[in-house]
Amino acid sequence: MSREAIAAAAARFAPHDGAFLRRTPLWKLPGAAFGVRCDEVWLKLEHLQVSGSFKARGMLNRLLAQPIPGAGVVVASGGNAGIATAAAARRLGVRCEVFVPTVCSPAKRARLRELGAHVVVTGDVYAQALEACLERQRATGALLTHAYDQPEVVAGAGTIAREIEEQGGRPDSVLVSVGGGGLIAGIASWFRREARIVALEPELAPTLFAARAAGAPVDVAVSGLAADSLGAKRIGSIAWDITQQFVGDAVLVPDGAIGAAQRTLWKEFKLAVEPAAALGLAALQAGAYVPGERERVCLVVCGANVDPATLA
Amino acid sequence: MSREAIAAAAARFAPHDGAFLRRTPLWKLPGAAFGVRCDEVWLKLEHLQVSGSFKARGMLNRLLAQPIPGAGVVVASGGNAGIATAAAARRLGVRCEVFVPTVCSPAKRARLRELGAHVVVTGDVYAQALEACLERQRATGALLTHAYDQPEVVAGAGTIAREIEEQGGRPDSVLVSVGGGGLIAGIASWFRREARIVALEPELAPTLFAARAAGAPVDVAVSGLAADSLGAKRIGSIAWDITQQFVGDAVLVPDGAIGAAQRTLWKEFKLAVEPAAALGLAALQAGAYVPGERERVCLVVCGANVDPATLA
Repeated sequence: MSREAIAAAAARFAPHDGAFLRRTPLWKLPGAAFGVRCDEVWLKLEHLQVSGSFKARGMLNRLLAQPIPGAGVVVASGGNAGIATAAAARRLGVRCEVFVPTVCSPAKRARLRELGAHVVVTGDVYAQALEACLERQRATGALLTHAYDQPEVVAGAGTIAREIEEQGGRPDSVLVSVGGGGLIAGIASWFRREARIVALEPELAPTLFAARAAGAPVDVAVSGLAADSLGAKRIGSIAWDITQQFVGDAVLVPDGAIGAAQRTLWKEFKLAVEPAAALGLAALQAGAYVPGERERVCLVVCGANVDPATLA
Repeated sequence: MSREAIAAAAARFAPHDGAFLRRTPLWKLPGAAFGVRCDEVWLKLEHLQVSGSFKARGMLNRLLAQPIPGAGVVVASGGNAGIATAAAARRLGVRCEVFVPTVCSPAKRARLRELGAHVVVTGDVYAQALEACLERQRATGALLTHAYDQPEVVAGAGTIAREIEEQGGRPDSVLVSVGGGGLIAGIASWFRREARIVALEPELAPTLFAARAAGAPVDVAVSGLAADSLGAKRIGSIAWDITQQFVGDAVLVPDGAIGAAQRTLWKEFKLAVEPAAALGLAALQAGAYVPGERERVCLVVCGANVDPATLA
């Protein structure tokens, strides 16, 4: 994944800037604002992205980079990837089918329908919804979007790193939450060895950590607070290759610290974020990642798909 | 109120920058992001300020500009002004007493106590709590902070305008919510005639609108969605003088539009704001203020003291 592929994604986004895809704020605060001994903590407020998460970048890039058949777009996801695909498809005026299992909540189905998607509820678990989605793709020739393991999706996520550099220069380190690894693969492909990229995973969803222990991607059991958005069972193959090159540290964060950081971000900073977006602050506050005293650490606040009632 | 007084407030804030008071993000979006026919809409995300509202600036400036007696600080407010005074007093390590009427919710009292304030619950309505507060001030010589009608409080609010200009240059217009008028007085004192300052008030809390109709500040009945933070009964005397000089437009906004804009800011932008902070978008979306096609309009998103459960 080259820097050029990321710059190409950014160029594709230009006609959609602001009216759809957003240049999200970069907020620089001193470490002391969070009780952390480091020079600065930068918050990339990507949870303010259209569709409520960074995934809009990858999905829009996929849809802009590929020809879209008459059958439109298909995706299997009741979460951020499904919402982002539906939003991007609506923006481009193309048909979108989203496959979700029966456990997908009525609220999420309603949100997808609001975005104009055709929602197909099938199977009791995600794997069955995915199978139905792939069958439909084969039958109709629709364009498939994948939550993390497609080059355009990774390049789209990489535009976040490019934007951080434009807005604030280069940080010393970037702390990135990992599920399937699309976000960290994009960020690492931009900064390469010019910033320290730290992978953060919930203890209860350790796809990269387990792959490193095994020497190759392996399936893991996933559960816990952040499983809704970091619940991929296995690190993506693109992310595996890229993180092996550019990511030194893979750090686990306990659910207790994730929940505490999420509450701090709401109570003290009025940022309403989902658990996956709180891993960076959790790692700093729990000491899972200890920055240097002069370090400028960037946290990617990646999603806001949280029920606000749970923040109270 | 001179620009120098505002610059002096900003200089006083320097030792507290970031670790306490925050340089809040300025987010520039095209008008199309909101369905508004204008060039740009800028959101000054001041609801991310410490204590959850812009009031922290005024209260900190008041406490830094005046000698603080051994008896500490007193204020009558169960809302943003009380919380901001308590937070500023804690930062400076001084005693703080907050007087609130019995209608002040247990949640608000708990928040004030968490901030280290001594909470005195007295009287059934605000006027009685204020009377008790003033009595205490006379008895002990404590420093009184007022929610809007003190020069240091207005100058503190004015630092928002100075910061907007530093971050993004000068907008063509600034839309500002008015209760007692401290915020608009500060903003107008900075921009003077170099940007168009538009006063926004809920139809159900029209302190400036009524004063203009009467030719002088008068008491008005206040109610409705935003009364919690824009519920002053009369425009402040400082604000009256300054708005007469620098504010041409005083626009009323119906509660329906305020609620709709608050919901849009949450649902589409993931900004959790109180009703008072939604007046700018409400005025644009309801056509109460119609910008020019090439206008760059700045909205001051002034507070986040909202129960997140009500956003769902």
